[in-house]
Amino acid sequence: MRSDQREVNQLRNVTIETDYVKHPEGSVLISFGDTKVICNASVEDRVPPFLRGQGKGWITAEYAMLPRATESRNIRESSKGKVSGRTMEIQRLIGRALRAVVDLDSIGERTLWVDCDVIQADGGTRTASITGAFVAVVLALGKLVDAGKIKKLPITDYLTAISVGVLPDGQEILDLCYEEDSKAHVDMNVVMTGDGEFVELQGTGEEATFTMPQLQTMLSLAQKGVEELVEMQKEAIGSYAEVIDNLREKASNE
Amino acid sequence: MRSDQREVNQLRNVTIETDYVKHPEGSVLISFGDTKVICNASVEDRVPPFLRGQGKGWITAEYAMLPRATESRNIRESSKGKVSGRTMEIQRLIGRALRAVVDLDSIGERTLWVDCDVIQADGGTRTASITGAFVAVVLALGKLVDAGKIKKLPITDYLTAISVGVLPDGQEILDLCYEEDSKAHVDMNVVMTGDGEFVELQGTGEEATFTMPQLQTMLSLAQKGVEELVEMQKEAIGSYAEVIDNLREKASNE
Amino acid sequence: MRSDQREVNQLRNVTIETDYVKHPEGSVLISFGDTKVICNASVEDRVPPFLRGQGKGWITAEYAMLPRATESRNIRESSKGKVSGRTMEIQRLIGRALRAVVDLDSIGERTLWVDCDVIQADGGTRTASITGAFVAVVLALGKLVDAGKIKKLPITDYLTAISVGVLPDGQEILDLCYEEDSKAHVDMNVVMTGDGEFVELQGTGEEATFTMPQLQTMLSLAQKGVEELVEMQKEAIGSYAEVIDNLREKASNE
Amino acid sequence: MRSDQREVNQLRNVTIETDYVKHPEGSVLISFGDTKVICNASVEDRVPPFLRGQGKGWITAEYAMLPRATESRNIRESSKGKVSGRTMEIQRLIGRALRAVVDLDSIGERTLWVDCDVIQADGGTRTASITGAFVAVVLALGKLVDAGKIKKLPITDYLTAISVGVLPDGQEILDLCYEEDSKAHVDMNVVMTGDGEFVELQGTGEEATFTMPQLQTMLSLAQKGVEELVEMQKEAIGSYAEVIDNLREKASNE
Amino acid sequence: MRSDQREVNQLRNVTIETDYVKHPEGSVLISFGDTKVICNASVEDRVPPFLRGQGKGWITAEYAMLPRATESRNIRESSKGKVSGRTMEIQRLIGRALRAVVDLDSIGERTLWVDCDVIQADGGTRTASITGAFVAVVLALGKLVDAGKIKKLPITDYLTAISVGVLPDGQEILDLCYEEDSKAHVDMNVVMTGDGEFVELQGTGEEATFTMPQLQTMLSLAQKGVEELVEMQKEAIGSYAEVIDNLREKASNE
Amino acid sequence: MRSDQREVNQLRNVTIETDYVKHPEGSVLISFGDTKVICNASVEDRVPPFLRGQGKGWITAEYAMLPRATESRNIRESSKGKVSGRTMEIQRLIGRALRAVVDLDSIGERTLWVDCDVIQADGGTRTASITGAFVAVVLALGKLVDAGKIKKLPITDYLTAISVGVLPDGQEILDLCYEEDSKAHVDMNVVMTGDGEFVELQGTGEEATFTMPQLQTMLSLAQKGVEELVEMQKEAIGSYAEVIDNLREKASNE
Repeated sequence: MRSDQREVNQLRNVTIETDYVKHPEGSVLISFGDTKVICNASVEDRVPPFLRGQGKGWITAEYAMLPRATESRNIRESSKGKVSGRTMEIQRLIGRALRAVVDLDSIGERTLWVDCDVIQADGGTRTASITGAFVAVVLALGKLVDAGKIKKLPITDYLTAISVGVLPDGQEILDLCYEEDSKAHVDMNVVMTGDGEFVELQGTGEEATFTMPQLQTMLSLAQKGVEELVEMQKEAIGSYAEVIDNLREKASNE
Repeated sequence: MRSDQREVNQLRNVTIETDYVKHPEGSVLISFGDTKVICNASVEDRVPPFLRGQGKGWITAEYAMLPRATESRNIRESSKGKVSGRTMEIQRLIGRALRAVVDLDSIGERTLWVDCDVIQADGGTRTASITGAFVAVVLALGKLVDAGKIKKLPITDYLTAISVGVLPDGQEILDLCYEEDSKAHVDMNVVMTGDGEFVELQGTGEEATFTMPQLQTMLSLAQKGVEELVEMQKEAIGSYAEVIDNLREKASNE
Repeated sequence: MRSDQREVNQLRNVTIETDYVKHPEGSVLISFGDTKVICNASVEDRVPPFLRGQGKGWITAEYAMLPRATESRNIRESSKGKVSGRTMEIQRLIGRALRAVVDLDSIGERTLWVDCDVIQADGGTRTASITGAFVAVVLALGKLVDAGKIKKLPITDYLTAISVGVLPDGQEILDLCYEEDSKAHVDMNVVMTGDGEFVELQGTGEEATFTMPQLQTMLSLAQKGVEELVEMQKEAIGSYAEVIDNLREKASNE
Repeated sequence: MRSDQREVNQLRNVTIETDYVKHPEGSVLISFGDTKVICNASVEDRVPPFLRGQGKGWITAEYAMLPRATESRNIRESSKGKVSGRTMEIQRLIGRALRAVVDLDSIGERTLWVDCDVIQADGGTRTASITGAFVAVVLALGKLVDAGKIKKLPITDYLTAISVGVLPDGQEILDLCYEEDSKAHVDMNVVMTGDGEFVELQGTGEEATFTMPQLQTMLSLAQKGVEELVEMQKEAIGSYAEVIDNLREKASNE
Repeated sequence: MRSDQREVNQLRNVTIETDYVKHPEGSVLISFGDTKVICNASVEDRVPPFLRGQGKGWITAEYAMLPRATESRNIRESSKGKVSGRTMEIQRLIGRALRAVVDLDSIGERTLWVDCDVIQADGGTRTASITGAFVAVVLALGKLVDAGKIKKLPITDYLTAISVGVLPDGQEILDLCYEEDSKAHVDMNVVMTGDGEFVELQGTGEEATFTMPQLQTMLSLAQKGVEELVEMQKEAIGSYAEVIDNLREKASNE
Repeated sequence: MRSDQREVNQLRNVTIETDYVKHPEGSVLISFGDTKVICNASVEDRVPPFLRGQGKGWITAEYAMLPRATESRNIRESSKGKVSGRTMEIQRLIGRALRAVVDLDSIGERTLWVDCDVIQADGGTRTASITGAFVAVVLALGKLVDAGKIKKLPITDYLTAISVGVLPDGQEILDLCYEEDSKAHVDMNVVMTGDGEFVELQGTGEEATFTMPQLQTMLSLAQKGVEELVEMQKEAIGSYAEVIDNLREKASNE
């Protein structure tokens, strides 16, 4: 039995609130149970130096937690004067994942800055960030389309992420809350497209190891979670969902 | 006429939502119009080195803005590797102000960490931070009282802050929104107690100067704003308001 | 009775030595009693990036103390690798104040670097810095005029600063020395023009508060101090005083 | 056909030279083709603060490249004043992997510092680092056993790592050299034990995605590579191999 | 002919003003022509971690220049966030030199902080710093003796430093001013004791080389300069000179 | 008798292995006994900002030690976030020395990056670095000549460095190993050209002093060592030695 009575393959209650903050081109508050993340996508009309003059765009993600998003207060990274290894890993992961489903060649020399700020943390903040960030990015790119700055929505597929893991008793579970995460022997983050292909797979034995059959079970759980999350993303992005579905259909026909 | 049709002595719509985030001992979301700040107060059971062994407590405030709290995105201070002068000034102000109304001798060797994180900015973020932080601190200290860790609420008075300024046409106004703030000739932040005494007064001519009569008008406006804000704080802290009022009455009788 | 026998409204012995260091365009050693500050103004023929191409100038101030300017040695900020919040506050204040009386549009794309280095500290270093820096800036700008690089002295008024405060016994005093400053309940820095207008007003209750009548008394003391300081500045800048007075007269006639 | 004529499931030429540097307790030069990494394991007789007093040990890994280990020179991280996100990710991975096969409870309050310094890079530096670091750690722990400081070799299994990937033409391959790595659509690093269990699995689509069948093929390739690497590790550690095999047999019998 | 008409073996005008700043235990303003350095020696009642518990003391020197000590303004090292290589070299040199003539075993667990702050620079700032710092250290240690904290002045000999060099025409000269220094082919700093022994010798060909005979000539010039500087130091330290001379005589008799 | 049985004027076993790493234009592994340094020279087709547009080149050297190059492990400078004073001193010395024998006007707007990475340390790492770096630089510049990018080898003379010192018993010795270095009273590094001229001379009394006769003896020892090292460099650079000798002969005839 899971600590919050969920089934082993059951997601927490997930909500996606759009237009949460007024200034960003795309803004989302996403919740996975008690995990709450503000995902803001901002459009900047230039690219990093290494891309200048190539006519293509870029996506950079940043991730942070409010100091008291967690049970005990963390020192602010701006006070420490440097970003932790964990933060770097997460923001590199978010950016890489988003770049896999956005056609950077079609957005011109623009940078999408994606800021994922965790307001309250209860496990799964990086997967919630990716899932919410995708919605914020669609909204921001949609505004570029609506403003006639780019021709069509440069999204090749949905993008969601979910965590799976193995409890000490060997049970594989979907969408770990903090209590589960802190005692799990294996922790795996799976980033997938709407088509069910892998974008990123990161599994870690925490001073433990895992077997091939455990891997297969975790991947199945992840697949189920991802399918449900894609449905929620469709609802959140409204009419853009149809646009994406049409684009995917077209692409698969080619 | 003000850009948002307010009277010159009228506050924006102010709301204070308590228990906004679940982990902190005191948590508040305060809004002044479109300015929204999360104020979290955390209790740590030790004090900074310079106070150790003296039996008294301390309050440290930190202030930050989400990168896209503002109209255009700001670089994250953790990425820059250092905190800006503006941020330092504000967090030093918040901490100093709170320490003026908390009896640090009565809270034991504890530090109150007060985090003010601006989610959306539209002018007056530092005064909103102080006004909200006071509520978060009362809630956090209230929990210490309820848990029997300290004997009585160590609050000597209410604490609120508000901005006043002078528009280019010479009109003094209360509670500047961003649009007003960016064109004002004078910008003044006033921090006051419930008793109407000054805790901090910071007035700046922005490549301009101001006269004694203008100062007096601004101070009157501030006083009116502060009185209204104290009423909202009382409502937000509920039964603790009565406790503070009793303590103040006792103190003024001594 | 004050610790150094002064009247409550009496300045310390103030001296202003010009051309103190040979390289800077303007160089001053200013003393307020035992507080001694070297104020150097340097002219650089370009402006910060945010001003480029606008044809106007800028003033940037930096402030520092020798490690042993104070009773006990402070760690050098260059060794700590970062500038403290206090230093940032002070140098932002100095720069802002000077920009209020210098016509930046008339100096071309130049930056005035104003360095205030405290050699010996005994209270009031930031107000001494502003008062001395004004003189250094006049000297530096005067050299630009003399060299024909700008047409006329772009100074709109005198600029001086002084501290006032409230002692524990409730007595308001002018120009606090360190011993007074460290025990004062209220500390206020007032920056004023020769015309008696406010440029900056910063009053702080040090774990204390102050009333409206106390504020009024402190402002009167400050006004008296400022008037005396302007006379000393006039003497220090010599013939430039007449130029400034003429310019002010002209401006007030327009 | 691969750029260096290898079969798709063929490792590069791998060599492991022990006792490469004289000071460290364990020192190895490992080569995977033109990739050369010095792996040094140092024993320190204390643990990081968060572990003090618990009687158990810790492993910390650091990773770096000589500036000209690569085709074009990289700026030294000590000159930049900070460690890159990539470096942090890799050193966190190495440390986590080693901690999975070392019984930290049995080594007392000691830290093993594992330094992986890449002298020449041609792809696969992180997997080479893990594979070589394991050998260095065995040698260092062996010295502790020989010196009677710990009772028995606290190694629970072999630990090796290898990269697999998918070329643009869809071909899955084992042990990518730099040329292959830079054009591959998928890059996966697999860390496994001698028992064939997963310690870490990190697969990334590089602006691309991968399917479940591709994942399965890559895992098979990795398994083959890992088996061969374990044999080379056995040879490198000499008599310690027998010790580890005995310990594993005992453990599996329990 | 030298730019300032001096003989090749002639020092600039050297002055040493003691008790220049009031707080430090030893304070000196030393001038070599237009080079002016404040040398402050502060006593701290503890030593760096690596010396704790050994009953002996330490000397740490720090060196800095005011931003406009030089012809064009230098960026403040505290603003850059790091100390330059040049500064580090100089402060390491000053500390090392002083430690050669102070008996660290006799001063107890105390650190002498020696701050050399260049107010105006015209070549030879590091040698002026050493020469002035020695006087400041004698004064500070003298105070410890006078206060009965240490038994006798723990100074084993005088310590002075001077620069010598070779001009482009091959002429060796003593005590280079900035104009000479910037065009010299060879620049050598010599630190010597009152007994004429070397403490430090640093000679550098500036994109040039020097021969053995040139070295010998430069060393003779340095010796002459050092002898004159020792006399000035004796005058500056007053009665302590006799104490040092007695101690040296005693030591040479042993 | 020396700890390793050498004569007082005897070098350790010195070897120079060229083309050690495959990517750099010049790469050398140099050993002085147990001291081993990789010296890589990289050519970059631009110069630092202060030299742009002048048509001449530059040489920048960087120096580092692997954390466990030494008997006990040192913290990595990239982890500390700053380069130590010792490192800065050494890399400035290496760069300065090399610039004395390379004709920077003849290499065009190029920077030679010289990286000296100490793999194993046993005293004399800075002198080994210079001696090895010279060879790497010749190889790199030779490649530029061979590629027709510059007309002739822009080397004006050989460059070698060696340490000499005085043991506690007063014996002067050549080429100190770590054990000797750590107890020596005087440590001197001598950088010389093939012509026997000085490039750099740095002698330090380690809490001790040295006399003129000791200096003379040390210089003689250094001269002998340098002559032997030049022979080894000639052998290492092969046919380039003849080129350099011809160039030197021509120069001395002019």
